[in-house]
Amino acid sequence: MPEFAPLKNDTFIRALLRQPTDYTPLWLMRQAGRYLPEYKATRQRAGSFMGLATNPDYATEVTLQPLDRFALDAAILFSDILTVPDAMGLGLYFVEGEGPKFERPLRDEQAVMALRVPDLEKLEYVFEAVTQIRIELNGRVPLIGFSGSPWTLACYMVEGGGSGDFRSVKTMLYNRPDLMHHILQTNATAVAAYLNAQIDAGAQAVMIFDTWGGALADGIYQEFSLRYMQDVMRKLKREKNGVRIPAIVFTKGGGLWLNAIADIGADAVGLDWTVDLGKARTLVGDRVALQGNLDPVVLFANPDQIRAEVKKVLDSFGKPHSGSGHVFNLGHGISQFTPPESVAAMVDAVHEISRAMRL
Amino acid sequence: MPEFAPLKNDTFIRALLRQPTDYTPLWLMRQAGRYLPEYKATRQRAGSFMGLATNPDYATEVTLQPLDRFALDAAILFSDILTVPDAMGLGLYFVEGEGPKFERPLRDEQAVMALRVPDLEKLEYVFEAVTQIRIELNGRVPLIGFSGSPWTLACYMVEGGGSGDFRSVKTMLYNRPDLMHHILQTNATAVAAYLNAQIDAGAQAVMIFDTWGGALADGIYQEFSLRYMQDVMRKLKREKNGVRIPAIVFTKGGGLWLNAIADIGADAVGLDWTVDLGKARTLVGDRVALQGNLDPVVLFANPDQIRAEVKKVLDSFGKPHSGSGHVFNLGHGISQFTPPESVAAMVDAVHEISRAMRL
Repeated sequence: MPEFAPLKNDTFIRALLRQPTDYTPLWLMRQAGRYLPEYKATRQRAGSFMGLATNPDYATEVTLQPLDRFALDAAILFSDILTVPDAMGLGLYFVEGEGPKFERPLRDEQAVMALRVPDLEKLEYVFEAVTQIRIELNGRVPLIGFSGSPWTLACYMVEGGGSGDFRSVKTMLYNRPDLMHHILQTNATAVAAYLNAQIDAGAQAVMIFDTWGGALADGIYQEFSLRYMQDVMRKLKREKNGVRIPAIVFTKGGGLWLNAIADIGADAVGLDWTVDLGKARTLVGDRVALQGNLDPVVLFANPDQIRAEVKKVLDSFGKPHSGSGHVFNLGHGISQFTPPESVAAMVDAVHEISRAMRL
Repeated sequence: MPEFAPLKNDTFIRALLRQPTDYTPLWLMRQAGRYLPEYKATRQRAGSFMGLATNPDYATEVTLQPLDRFALDAAILFSDILTVPDAMGLGLYFVEGEGPKFERPLRDEQAVMALRVPDLEKLEYVFEAVTQIRIELNGRVPLIGFSGSPWTLACYMVEGGGSGDFRSVKTMLYNRPDLMHHILQTNATAVAAYLNAQIDAGAQAVMIFDTWGGALADGIYQEFSLRYMQDVMRKLKREKNGVRIPAIVFTKGGGLWLNAIADIGADAVGLDWTVDLGKARTLVGDRVALQGNLDPVVLFANPDQIRAEVKKVLDSFGKPHSGSGHVFNLGHGISQFTPPESVAAMVDAVHEISRAMRL
């Protein structure tokens, strides 16, 4: 393992740990992506999405691209949440315009009971990318590792791809909760091992994306999604070489469950734009930092409107002080159609306005 | 106007008005629909969806179909929320497998400023259907009239059809709030007139479907969706011949805003399955009745599981008493793939369990 350069900009880590910062740090979900022409160029050279994700050189290149354009306060590993079920042998493939699919979804008891935590060697390309990115970052900003949540992975694994109503996975959940718990427990073990290996490889913070937790009913969410994220939290390495590795959890559409989410042991909770940040801050108190929550569609507005909406988000959280932390982000991944100039306007607005709020 | 038969089963109306009932009444969003073979047969005879919706005989036939199969406690007019923008001249059409579209969406200032409240004569087929259904119901159960919310209609009117991210309509909202308010004010006036005409024609309760309110950011929802539903509430006839006409509002994904929604003057608030009914009941107190909130996917489980999930919803609301009302429903429209036997199991479970809870 190489020795990494010391961190020059630790604002993001400090905010996650609710320590004072000079300004509100920001990064964007899916910040390395199709809205950037340079990303599209690399993607074309790589030949396919998985060609890009499985090659550490390409993954490093696209991870760094948004940082060269914008003064973002964190990098996030370029990868896909479906690398884990792929390593479990489900056969990930992509159909142009249709999103990811699995050749062998978990449709019956036999398939479910055959599911195993994957050999992490199959995911070595991810850990290599983490180390290479960390080296090339050279301490500019921290590197975030990530995984899908046990439930969100299960959605794709049972449905065999994206879904509008989650009919297959929820039918299994209601009819055969035993099978669903078996998948989720396997996923939780795999996700924890996967994130720990990313931390070993150099990730300085980790995030769990529970993209589809918000599709679950109250009560069911707590039992089938939150519980397994809590299990991951318990199994996670939270320190490396004496340095805290903060963990962020994000359930899209999970605003109603914030109080419970804040109790699973994460350092920060991601929020989508339906949540009032000020109320959320009052509710969580000093338990966790908060991350979010601009509507990504605001980036289609003109620069004055973007600035006004950024200010609303910052004002809604209020003046940070010791013991509360805010990381600015979108409430969902950035749209592929976003004009890059809008991102520049947002980044400037977040830094300028949040600096002024601290004066 | 004919004189209608007196109501034999008023359980639904009583629950909306928070009066004591012998059991918890239920109906289903989209209860007249594609999951019923008899609906598909009528739809085929009608030739098209709009052929069905615009013909009062067909609309009456399909509205009554689910009541002949299941002991539902209310009928809901068979129609579509997009009849109103169609009457405004936007040119509604349907593409098989793609959902509704408009030939002339509101894409620029000129189109927006030309928008007018429609001549209600263009919607006469709806009011005729209401009266005919009411006659044929002959007092069995009450008839619900409905409309889309001003914001939800605006989504379709600006996007020109369904949307994943609401990019066009939200971009207009952020860049040209003046234009968006003009659309919403026009829609609110039209929706109120449309619902009042349904009440005149015989609707005994009305519901506003705010299907896309939950896509809005906190703060924006209150200004661009809730405010205009409140305006509709103010303009609505709430009594006819001395009988109260209850109004229900439903923002899908609006659980975080329940406190504000309960204050706009509706008799009841619809909730999706992400909301804890018990907490919701405590929050709204005696301001409104609540309607919901089973996940429609539960109807793909086996009868025992359906019964167990129905019981959870009823237990979550708790024992009704004078001053609080619960109408059982799904948290979203019933899926076209639902087995009708599942609906029968759910209806029996709701009636039996809720009767026993009152002993």
